[in-house]
Amino acid sequence: MDVRAILFDVFGTVVDWRGSLIEELSAWGAARGLDVDWAGLVDAWRGAYAPSMDQVRRGELPWTNLDALHRASLGELAPQFGLVGLGPADLEWVNRGWHRLRPWPDSVAGLDRLKRRYILSPLSNGNVSLLVNMAKQARLPWDLVMCAETFGHYKPDPETYLGACRLLDLSPDQVMLCAAHNSDLAAAQRCGLRTAFIPRATEYGPHQSRDFGPEGEWDVVAADLAAFAERMDRSVPEGAA
Amino acid sequence: MDVRAILFDVFGTVVDWRGSLIEELSAWGAARGLDVDWAGLVDAWRGAYAPSMDQVRRGELPWTNLDALHRASLGELAPQFGLVGLGPADLEWVNRGWHRLRPWPDSVAGLDRLKRRYILSPLSNGNVSLLVNMAKQARLPWDLVMCAETFGHYKPDPETYLGACRLLDLSPDQVMLCAAHNSDLAAAQRCGLRTAFIPRATEYGPHQSRDFGPEGEWDVVAADLAAFAERMDRSVPEGAA
Repeated sequence: MDVRAILFDVFGTVVDWRGSLIEELSAWGAARGLDVDWAGLVDAWRGAYAPSMDQVRRGELPWTNLDALHRASLGELAPQFGLVGLGPADLEWVNRGWHRLRPWPDSVAGLDRLKRRYILSPLSNGNVSLLVNMAKQARLPWDLVMCAETFGHYKPDPETYLGACRLLDLSPDQVMLCAAHNSDLAAAQRCGLRTAFIPRATEYGPHQSRDFGPEGEWDVVAADLAAFAERMDRSVPEGAA
Repeated sequence: MDVRAILFDVFGTVVDWRGSLIEELSAWGAARGLDVDWAGLVDAWRGAYAPSMDQVRRGELPWTNLDALHRASLGELAPQFGLVGLGPADLEWVNRGWHRLRPWPDSVAGLDRLKRRYILSPLSNGNVSLLVNMAKQARLPWDLVMCAETFGHYKPDPETYLGACRLLDLSPDQVMLCAAHNSDLAAAQRCGLRTAFIPRATEYGPHQSRDFGPEGEWDVVAADLAAFAERMDRSVPEGAA
């Protein structure tokens, strides 16, 4: 392998979106005396994620970034979860919780180590400002920020994976996607990219139903980002299968 | 001022393109026994820069990134400067010299200091891979990389300045452009951005004819990037005029 750049899925792979949002919103709600099932809201909110992107992908919506999709689905869920008393500024603050997600404990150390040898970028369905604000707060050491908004397409559209290779002026086999989701890796592999799987078995909490292990012929499988960095530093990647 | 992000012109403002290219190419040519007026070539090459971008801006060329514009003008200048014996790989190596430019002595320290409080991005006419490779080698600590290629427009088109604000989800008065060129700052100011001028009086060597000092009502004027960082850290920016 002659990998020069590593792209990362972010939600679930680098940051613990579910744990972060439930923790932050629970504390925020408690301080205001709100009686809300925050875990239920967060799960329902994430449940609206793929369908909302599919509306863009099918052309039923013009290009809409993830902040706007999140805000729309939050607005739809708010009455059901008893968020009716909140004003626009409150809902905007809740929506920006996606900018404040915290990394898994191994993420920053793994990325810092990989940054010495590789170009690092997210390749996320998040938008630019979300990913920049998150990186600033969580100290994610990206060299650049590429995402769905960069290309006007959501993953798994091939425009995202191939667009990243084009902007980096690298061939697909010089670029690797690291993700905790087999479907994302499969789409990248179909575009010719290298692939690395790391499991995040608690991403969905008690609702996790898949991605407990590798389900494809990925170039690298590692326990977490620290182990992945060590593997890439040793330059002897081992396939999963 | 409530500045959240600082954008930087790169060629001339952050890196010494002329000194870097002349030094590197002279050493490279000497090792190969080439008798070439390298300073003359570099000056003529840079002279082709604005006209080639103008062809894109006027629609005479489809969108073409700076690597490709540089490569085309190098090909046109090669015979005149006695580069006829070089093969495609050599010319490509010369062309990639723009990816290897070195920063001015104050640049990295200034950017490192600013990064603690502000979102930092280039806003350059260079392309993404050029800016990423440069940053990797020169240790420029960008939070993200935005440039002409991001927007399909070259500066001073307003799509570049306003596109950067849009991707960052900031209003123009929360974004500052730092540049050594008054014309770039004037275009940014017309879009509502904040402005900072630093002089780079030796950028063009003996051919420098302008930009020795501020020529507009810029929000900040500083001697170099280290002084600019100190000024922004103190949060008491002073206008030039």
